[in-house]
Amino acid sequence: MQLRVPGPTPCPPQALEAMGRQMINHRGEEFGKILNSTTEKLKQIFQTKGDVFLLTASGTGGMEAAIVNTLSPGDKVLSISNGAFGERFADIAQGYGAEVIRLNFEWGKAVDLDAVEKVLRKHDSIKDGDIKAVLATHNETSTGMTNKLGDISAVVKKFDKLLLVDAISSLGCINLPTDDWHCDIVVTGSQKGWMVPPGLAMVSVSEKAWQAHAQAKMPRYYWDFSKAKDFLQKGQTPWTPAISIFYALNTTLDLMLNEGLDNIFARHGRIAQIARNGVKSLGFSLFPEEDYASDTVTAVNATDKIDVPKLIQVLREEHDVVIAGGQRKLAGKIFRIGHLGSVEDDDIKSVLEALNKALPRAKKG
Amino acid sequence: MQLRVPGPTPCPPQALEAMGRQMINHRGEEFGKILNSTTEKLKQIFQTKGDVFLLTASGTGGMEAAIVNTLSPGDKVLSISNGAFGERFADIAQGYGAEVIRLNFEWGKAVDLDAVEKVLRKHDSIKDGDIKAVLATHNETSTGMTNKLGDISAVVKKFDKLLLVDAISSLGCINLPTDDWHCDIVVTGSQKGWMVPPGLAMVSVSEKAWQAHAQAKMPRYYWDFSKAKDFLQKGQTPWTPAISIFYALNTTLDLMLNEGLDNIFARHGRIAQIARNGVKSLGFSLFPEEDYASDTVTAVNATDKIDVPKLIQVLREEHDVVIAGGQRKLAGKIFRIGHLGSVEDDDIKSVLEALNKALPRAKKG
Repeated sequence: MQLRVPGPTPCPPQALEAMGRQMINHRGEEFGKILNSTTEKLKQIFQTKGDVFLLTASGTGGMEAAIVNTLSPGDKVLSISNGAFGERFADIAQGYGAEVIRLNFEWGKAVDLDAVEKVLRKHDSIKDGDIKAVLATHNETSTGMTNKLGDISAVVKKFDKLLLVDAISSLGCINLPTDDWHCDIVVTGSQKGWMVPPGLAMVSVSEKAWQAHAQAKMPRYYWDFSKAKDFLQKGQTPWTPAISIFYALNTTLDLMLNEGLDNIFARHGRIAQIARNGVKSLGFSLFPEEDYASDTVTAVNATDKIDVPKLIQVLREEHDVVIAGGQRKLAGKIFRIGHLGSVEDDDIKSVLEALNKALPRAKKG
Repeated sequence: MQLRVPGPTPCPPQALEAMGRQMINHRGEEFGKILNSTTEKLKQIFQTKGDVFLLTASGTGGMEAAIVNTLSPGDKVLSISNGAFGERFADIAQGYGAEVIRLNFEWGKAVDLDAVEKVLRKHDSIKDGDIKAVLATHNETSTGMTNKLGDISAVVKKFDKLLLVDAISSLGCINLPTDDWHCDIVVTGSQKGWMVPPGLAMVSVSEKAWQAHAQAKMPRYYWDFSKAKDFLQKGQTPWTPAISIFYALNTTLDLMLNEGLDNIFARHGRIAQIARNGVKSLGFSLFPEEDYASDTVTAVNATDKIDVPKLIQVLREEHDVVIAGGQRKLAGKIFRIGHLGSVEDDDIKSVLEALNKALPRAKKG
């Protein structure tokens, strides 16, 4: 079975072997070494000198942690969104009482940087209108699109705002220099580029985010970064961690660092190009603007003639390939091929071959 | 290495093998079957006809979920506490803005039911003094003590209050008939009696808890039970779940149901008695009142002559046995032997033998 959804991603044998290791005391030295080692390696891939914490949760838990650790109810927050996960980030902030200004762009369309700047400038000029933080999505998994985060950051930082980034499906696959791009919190999840099962969210915290944290009044306990920092100093997590996933991640981080960041980014770029060329040669078009097409997930317009659920079923049942459909308003309209983490050229070529064979069986009517 | 802390507990080979299984699509049929099967088996062990949800988090996350799903800021909450985890439950509620009335009993001492009744009666008689919910700990891991939850519930339910229960280190080991004892929310964690790695919290939700949920205004997103219920109806979780732990838990739940609840409870009772007799025969006394000594963890007064960190070190380094020290104000004063989940008579006998051998090396001064 070839799993090609945009997460969970296939785990290499080393990761699966590590998952099967027996439990240890999470308050003992052995776990402390694993936690410290994992954290240090993550910092290299996050490209940050700031803090990085591992939370036992899915990526959405990491997004919630980013919000509640830096904001207070009533804070004005600018949400820049062009997909389902951008909307989720805004929903979380709103749920915790932030006043969310939603700058929504059409799903699959580029963020208009001038529009972002306009909103920030306008609010800076209003008395008490000040925006505290900006929420941005690096890779929008729902639309197969990578936002130009460096450019977004340049605008946000002109106004010296806190920048909270959902990089769940990009970090470790697509270049995201956390410190160089002045990202204050970056969130990712273990089941994406990291090649291990779901269950850990990883978050980086900048100095500016710590300053916001000191003022932030949203209620928090499980997600609290202060507790995470205190415990990390003694080689522990505040709450019992998902030990098995730490075992696995400590192993795949070695694989990643051995491959080298530039090589990882190049591999994802090359494979994504094969995916894009492949679907186009089968007569499909890409869902997102092509300049923004993601290197981790390819979202494809299904055309009127293709029954997406049927296509997914035929691929799974007859070709042992698992891909994803569209989410929410894109259900039935697009299909998505994940190519992140443990993936090689031949993997995606075999997906394209299977797709070619499955298509005649997935015609509508 | 024999791991005898009160969680994480050793995983049987079937669980570890399951942990090493490759990833699948968490939005596909196969995972749906695992989720439904796991949920149904859990209901049998929770002894409930209510809902049971699995959250990707540690047990503390489950406690936070219990609070934020049923309460509003300003709600009066009675915390009944006689240990570190009772205090944690109260801290979470307070952190989210509940007005917490802390009925603290000495660590290791029984809950005074009359005192509980008195507080509930007094507040019921005050205008707007009404207590909304009671927080109780079934098994207090920090003191090796099992509170008589059935009796506590009888008092709480006389006043028709919501009863939220931390049963993290008891459920599946010690009898807790959720419905018969009218527990509105019961929380447990995968790394305890369930014999799988940490990373999942399991929570039951009663009809009365749902009614409270409909009114509850504490902010929540990741923990939201409504989302969990909606997604469960289509065989999914709202956020990407810790798939590997589901694989393992689905396996150990079969082991548990095959053994039978009564046999599991009897085994824990028998082994705990061996542990208690054993430490007493070595000249130690139990930390908690003996009538309340837990069947999942034995907490032992260290006596003035024993250096607890040294004892733990000698046991680990020279006898391959890992036990736990005391937490917070009990650090250095007690040691704790976990005997829950995957444990047989011989396991605890070998711990006692190791303890006997290690003691001379752990004398103070």
